[in-house]
Amino acid sequence: MSSDISRIYLDNNATTPLDDRVKNSISEALNLWANPSSNNENATKAAEAIAEARNHLARMFNVENDGVVFTSGGTESNNWVIEGAIQTARKLNRNEIPHVITTNIEHPSILEPLKRREEFGEITVTYVSVNPLTGFVTSQSVNDSLTPSTCLITIMLANNETGVLQPVEEICHLIRDKLKEKSPFLHSDVAQAAGKIPIDVKSLGVDAVTVVGHKFYGPRNGALIFSPRGIRIPPMLLGGNQESGWRSGTENTPMIVGLGEAARIYNEGYTNIESVLRQNRDYFEELLVKKNLRNSHVIHFLGSPRLPNTSSVAFLDYPSHGCDLLEKCRTFYASTGAACHKNECSPILKACGIPFAIASKTVRISFGRSTTLAQIDTVVEELEKLCSPLTENDF
Amino acid sequence: MSSDISRIYLDNNATTPLDDRVKNSISEALNLWANPSSNNENATKAAEAIAEARNHLARMFNVENDGVVFTSGGTESNNWVIEGAIQTARKLNRNEIPHVITTNIEHPSILEPLKRREEFGEITVTYVSVNPLTGFVTSQSVNDSLTPSTCLITIMLANNETGVLQPVEEICHLIRDKLKEKSPFLHSDVAQAAGKIPIDVKSLGVDAVTVVGHKFYGPRNGALIFSPRGIRIPPMLLGGNQESGWRSGTENTPMIVGLGEAARIYNEGYTNIESVLRQNRDYFEELLVKKNLRNSHVIHFLGSPRLPNTSSVAFLDYPSHGCDLLEKCRTFYASTGAACHKNECSPILKACGIPFAIASKTVRISFGRSTTLAQIDTVVEELEKLCSPLTENDF
Ligand SMILES: Cc1ncc(COP(=O)(O)O)c(C=O)c1O
Ligand SMILES: Cc1ncc(COP(=O)(O)O)c(C=O)c1O
Repeated sequence: MSSDISRIYLDNNATTPLDDRVKNSISEALNLWANPSSNNENATKAAEAIAEARNHLARMFNVENDGVVFTSGGTESNNWVIEGAIQTARKLNRNEIPHVITTNIEHPSILEPLKRREEFGEITVTYVSVNPLTGFVTSQSVNDSLTPSTCLITIMLANNETGVLQPVEEICHLIRDKLKEKSPFLHSDVAQAAGKIPIDVKSLGVDAVTVVGHKFYGPRNGALIFSPRGIRIPPMLLGGNQESGWRSGTENTPMIVGLGEAARIYNEGYTNIESVLRQNRDYFEELLVKKNLRNSHVIHFLGSPRLPNTSSVAFLDYPSHGCDLLEKCRTFYASTGAACHKNECSPILKACGIPFAIASKTVRISFGRSTTLAQIDTVVEELEKLCSPLTENDF
Repeated sequence: MSSDISRIYLDNNATTPLDDRVKNSISEALNLWANPSSNNENATKAAEAIAEARNHLARMFNVENDGVVFTSGGTESNNWVIEGAIQTARKLNRNEIPHVITTNIEHPSILEPLKRREEFGEITVTYVSVNPLTGFVTSQSVNDSLTPSTCLITIMLANNETGVLQPVEEICHLIRDKLKEKSPFLHSDVAQAAGKIPIDVKSLGVDAVTVVGHKFYGPRNGALIFSPRGIRIPPMLLGGNQESGWRSGTENTPMIVGLGEAARIYNEGYTNIESVLRQNRDYFEELLVKKNLRNSHVIHFLGSPRLPNTSSVAFLDYPSHGCDLLEKCRTFYASTGAACHKNECSPILKACGIPFAIASKTVRISFGRSTTLAQIDTVVEELEKLCSPLTENDF
């Protein structure tokens, strides 16, 4: 692939660059190499740095410090939630097959562990479909899926491809009002929402959320963050009882410090961060309308509550699929949710009820904190050239 | 605790400092922030850096590149092995309770996951005892523990506290000769041996080994390394199918690069590394004999094959326990395997058959690559002062 590292980066939902301050904090924390559980002065310094990071995360999600459990990333956090909720259910009732409710648009790190256990006959799963008109599930359809064996409801806060926000708060309140202390474990994968919109775990009403550093200018680790309401699942990784027993394994001090710094940066500037993202995305979407592309593009779920930085756009006049379009682009990077084959489209878009012909021409543009309006001009100009119906100049 | 960060560090089995070259490689790799699975030039660079790291690990353990699966650390690798081997066994024979053979001196990241499953009635476990005269298990006792349901044999290569090497190669050959393709999954936690003595996974005869970066001057991640013989366990973490599907989760490029650099450094200088460690440890043990401590110390398992860097020593004339002794030391850091209470001693030493009175006075001295003979003089001098029977000068 011919490409250029100075291209405009519009794939921030795949991963973000590290904030320079995060980078520096990690490089410095490489000096805190002592084992935080050891009994010496260096160990104490490492433990203090971890405590400070924990504090930044707790503030970011409005939980107590001891609610923050550092993990190796979102995949671990999501796998842990599934394993833990099922383990708890089995312990309580050995004769019942546990039931899980989720959506059909979750990340593979939710869907795959569920599918494996389903195949083994260990659990049953209801995959609630999103409404094709809105891109989100309704609290009613989640409620309708409840069974007496439901041990876990896991619903992402924002979808990684469409950016559509799911009504997690409404769902949690409905379930808790109905089932009280008998509520299943309520989990939300907030990987894509964290660092873009404020997340208050207490008012969301969930028991835990999955957090991923590299989606908000932090490093490649994450956390599972528990609500102060105090309902927990057992640990998945057992051993030396680090993280107060909730996640064993010698602490990865530099990564934890970096994640804390990413949280600190967000806490410091979150209103501004959100408005910059939204301004960029809205400018882009308005520009598409103003330009020649007016009648030949569809922005998915434009009318739904969405992440401020995400635009899922189908370019209808482009003669091939989205992946092919992106390969032609020279000014920027973005992505599609599908492998680069003519007859594939994103399984998420398909699950959202978007017809293949449109889904296959869809590109995900995800803006970053440092995207500029001038960059967006450049990008739309290129898209306009590539996607407009052929003009006389093409002959 | 009053202490001083310039103290001599003799706790290298708890964790090692980062080699400066590892530190630099991580700091530089923080710039490789692209998602290695993405389709752009930066992503390709990140993927290439990971491939190079994989290559260094493969060389270090004499396996194929695709045998190296990066994980978040030894705890994850060990938990994975247990989960995976049991899953395979259940799939093969749903009506049988799987059986596991291990030793009574494994790390908690082996023992705790086994105990939890044992408590739940999911598995049965034989904890083979080490011989109190040698500190290692015999291949005969492992062989005697085999049942038709044995699905996993997991035996560490070197114990973290005593440093005693276990006869893993002999055990593997005995089991394979006897059971051929019906052999259970053979695993060894080589966390403490890697980076100190050469490890050849092929000739060891195991199916997989657990590797931990921060025990050999690398970062806080690790690997599970499979033998080219091709027997694997299913993945534990499911999701985006990174690591060829063996371990999902967006790759932690900087940590992986750092681990690769630690392996490269070892590959480059392993004979020298081992001899420096051995020279230091032997000098220390000889000095104890030469000095006033001659008749008042015991080095555990002095006659057994041991790691070159580890000395587990009981100071018999010290009037209190080992932890108390270390708190009095001003020139160096070391550790005991126990919480700092008068009536506790290391569970490992207890499992090795060492009487409480001796175990409780035991200190683990673990030397590093940059320990000097002069430092050892200082340390022994202090130990001599603190541990010798009271002399007239004390009054
Ligand atoms: C919604 C969502 N959840 C979880 C993850 C998993 O994160 P990671 O691959 O870093 O473990 C991602 C990122 O790919 C994601 O977008
Ligand atoms: C023998 C052994 N195995 C496994 C581990 C676990 O390593 P970590 O805590 O880095 O996951 C350690 C280190 O504490 C160890 O000494």
